[in-house]
Amino acid sequence: MNQLETSEVSIPKLIGALIIGAIIWFLPIPEGVKTEAWHLLAIFIFTILGIILKALPMGTMCFTGLAIALLTNTLNIKNQALTGFGNSTIWLIVIAFFIARGFIKTGLGSRIAYFFIFHLGSKTLGLAYGLALTDLVLAPATPSNTARAGGVIYPILKSMAHNFGSDPDNGTRKKIGEYLVLTAFQVDIITSAMFVTSMAANPLIVQFAANNGVELTWGGWALAAIVPGLISLAIIPYLVFKIYPPEIKETPDAKNIARRKLKEMGPISKNEWIMLFVFAFLIIFWILGGTLGINATTTAIAGLAILLISGVLNWEDVKSEKGAWDTLIWFGILVMMADFLNKLGFIPWFSALIAKEMGGHAWTLAFPALLLIYFYSHYMFASATAHVTAMAAAFMGVGITVGVPPYLMAISLGFFSNLFGSTTHYGMGPAPVLFGSGYVELTDWWKLGFYLSIINIAVWLGIGGLWWKLLGLF
Amino acid sequence: MNQLETSEVSIPKLIGALIIGAIIWFLPIPEGVKTEAWHLLAIFIFTILGIILKALPMGTMCFTGLAIALLTNTLNIKNQALTGFGNSTIWLIVIAFFIARGFIKTGLGSRIAYFFIFHLGSKTLGLAYGLALTDLVLAPATPSNTARAGGVIYPILKSMAHNFGSDPDNGTRKKIGEYLVLTAFQVDIITSAMFVTSMAANPLIVQFAANNGVELTWGGWALAAIVPGLISLAIIPYLVFKIYPPEIKETPDAKNIARRKLKEMGPISKNEWIMLFVFAFLIIFWILGGTLGINATTTAIAGLAILLISGVLNWEDVKSEKGAWDTLIWFGILVMMADFLNKLGFIPWFSALIAKEMGGHAWTLAFPALLLIYFYSHYMFASATAHVTAMAAAFMGVGITVGVPPYLMAISLGFFSNLFGSTTHYGMGPAPVLFGSGYVELTDWWKLGFYLSIINIAVWLGIGGLWWKLLGLF
Repeated sequence: MNQLETSEVSIPKLIGALIIGAIIWFLPIPEGVKTEAWHLLAIFIFTILGIILKALPMGTMCFTGLAIALLTNTLNIKNQALTGFGNSTIWLIVIAFFIARGFIKTGLGSRIAYFFIFHLGSKTLGLAYGLALTDLVLAPATPSNTARAGGVIYPILKSMAHNFGSDPDNGTRKKIGEYLVLTAFQVDIITSAMFVTSMAANPLIVQFAANNGVELTWGGWALAAIVPGLISLAIIPYLVFKIYPPEIKETPDAKNIARRKLKEMGPISKNEWIMLFVFAFLIIFWILGGTLGINATTTAIAGLAILLISGVLNWEDVKSEKGAWDTLIWFGILVMMADFLNKLGFIPWFSALIAKEMGGHAWTLAFPALLLIYFYSHYMFASATAHVTAMAAAFMGVGITVGVPPYLMAISLGFFSNLFGSTTHYGMGPAPVLFGSGYVELTDWWKLGFYLSIINIAVWLGIGGLWWKLLGLF
Repeated sequence: MNQLETSEVSIPKLIGALIIGAIIWFLPIPEGVKTEAWHLLAIFIFTILGIILKALPMGTMCFTGLAIALLTNTLNIKNQALTGFGNSTIWLIVIAFFIARGFIKTGLGSRIAYFFIFHLGSKTLGLAYGLALTDLVLAPATPSNTARAGGVIYPILKSMAHNFGSDPDNGTRKKIGEYLVLTAFQVDIITSAMFVTSMAANPLIVQFAANNGVELTWGGWALAAIVPGLISLAIIPYLVFKIYPPEIKETPDAKNIARRKLKEMGPISKNEWIMLFVFAFLIIFWILGGTLGINATTTAIAGLAILLISGVLNWEDVKSEKGAWDTLIWFGILVMMADFLNKLGFIPWFSALIAKEMGGHAWTLAFPALLLIYFYSHYMFASATAHVTAMAAAFMGVGITVGVPPYLMAISLGFFSNLFGSTTHYGMGPAPVLFGSGYVELTDWWKLGFYLSIINIAVWLGIGGLWWKLLGLF
């Protein structure tokens, strides 16, 4: 995971990004675009390029972009450049990171996994569904899908596979390990798409939607996702079972392992009960929030306060949650930049321009075209966040301008911003972790990813589309 | 340091604070005060009480207060409750924490200390001045005075004392250890007062001043502090030498130790040069910032970007800098609350009320009275931040309302918010660390603290007052 530590800075790549940014900066500014909007665009592209090329770690790149925006007076510090850090959606994710820590710290995450394995795990397929259910249960309050798949699911998966004599390096990986890893990864991609709080970049979509006058609430997102999400989750373990069948198909021993592990854990501890209670509290008020008028971030802050006062988490846990602080920085800076690209008028101008080019076609053609381009360009991206930041705002603007119903455009982009992760072994946080396990060959990873990309698009746009029509979303 | 880890939550104290907050909440609201201002006052007092009583760690207490403010609809989340996190002064301090890490990581902090010891340390008094100079040099870019005194100065001090056969537990502490610890602590209090960026709570004063229409720039603060600050620094090591004379007065060996240490370190490394360059860059632009119109936070962000791009710091250092994240949270929430107590009209109303009571007296009487009450009430506080948050805004408001020149009132409170730290062994971050060394008896700590409090007040208000008059600050 930390192999880049010593070489996290690539000066040639940084200079490359800087040159492209500088060229854009000095290009003649198109009519109708304000100077500061154009300059911000140049800085934004420099920042995004640096992230995509991995010139610097994302947070460092964002600070660098921020420094340039400030030193060039493109943005002022008093009421522009730091506004992202006061954005309530960002704090929803930051606080969800702290809350998710509770699943790991209390052991509740593992207990849930062993509970499902105990009840479903007598066959390999059941074991896979057990892990899938665990991922689904944890997803609403775990915005790091890497932590979910890599921190909770993978350790259990690996010890299970090892118990069944399936290891990466001695020709036994196809016994069961390959199947479980592939399934766990593809399942995590789906659960990431299902909740605002199940993937760190989802709130970016919420923010871009808000900039287009579309309010995506926590409950609204989950409601739109529930039908296609559950269908994808239902078919993926089975499909992978058919395409990459494990050699071991019966796992009676898994039940015993799970029983033993649960016994070792003893009865549910006080802290686990509190964690369960807070989790239920969060889900209920996130779902009802829109109706009751309680902001999702308010609910999250209250939940965190309960965990801290009850001692389930301590203040040290909060201060040490590096993923949260990392997210706060890049998110705060990227959201702010995207926000001002919109406020300063660049995105509306650009959307109108592209829409004019595309003019005359029905939105029912433009809509799938935009989504497919958005989806498959993910082969070029090494992070969902980079992809969303680079393309989502513009695609949303264009789609809405050519007549796609705004809510439909926004939420589809939100779902696709996760589903595209199925494709490669580098395209989303959990991918390098699970691929790095060594259970799966690269060509198999990509092949399955491509097959499932088609399945997922069909399920989410096809069946999903009908569901959204039924819900009256468009 | 972490002895409170297991018992960081005190439910009885929390309930105590809650009851007092609730009583205030339900009191009849005085005429002229808005309901939400009064409710925020109740929540604010609850939060401050919780911090002072150590019901919960400061960050946890702040999150709890924030949750209550949100759940009671006292503040809204969209454009009130999270605005503190976008405050540029807060980010100045957060980023200074990252930059200060560079002093420790590169070894530049220790090199500076050994450099001064090599040149000044042949006598005990010179050794003390050497450590004082080190503290002063690091102060402008090290907002954690605990990190400065505890992280850089103390390890060197302790190894020096040990080398001279002075240890805490075997009757040798008066040889030299007691003297060096007392001096290092009292010096750190002075350097904390001298720069906006040398103590984490100083920017709170800047913020309160801004709420009263007074702009305290980085350069303005440093200019007002330089004369009284240098005088205090010049006399404190000597005074302590007279009051608590060390048994060892000549330390020829210190020079040799320093020489050996410097030799071990070898020539100044590339990273140290970069650190030095960034440090010089920061100081220059912080000083000239007011004139050039470059905000101090912009300068800090640019400096951080240089350290990150050059690899002096890596992104992991930033994510792991717990003190910065701790400060961001409590600072962001407390500043926001204090800000809205002002904006919602409570502070102006309260100041006018007290000023009416004090009416008729010349401000030249009210001014020292307010400052002395402010100073000596620090015996009740276990943290500068808690004290500043609880009292500074109100005292500033009252002072200005009774006619104290606003700039004078603001900056004096700023200085006193550090100087009051000299008094106790618990009143400011470095105190428990240095007192915990075991070199100093409690009664001696308090006695010296009281003596020096009088000296410092005389120097800062007397000579300082003349200097400020000369500068035209009032």
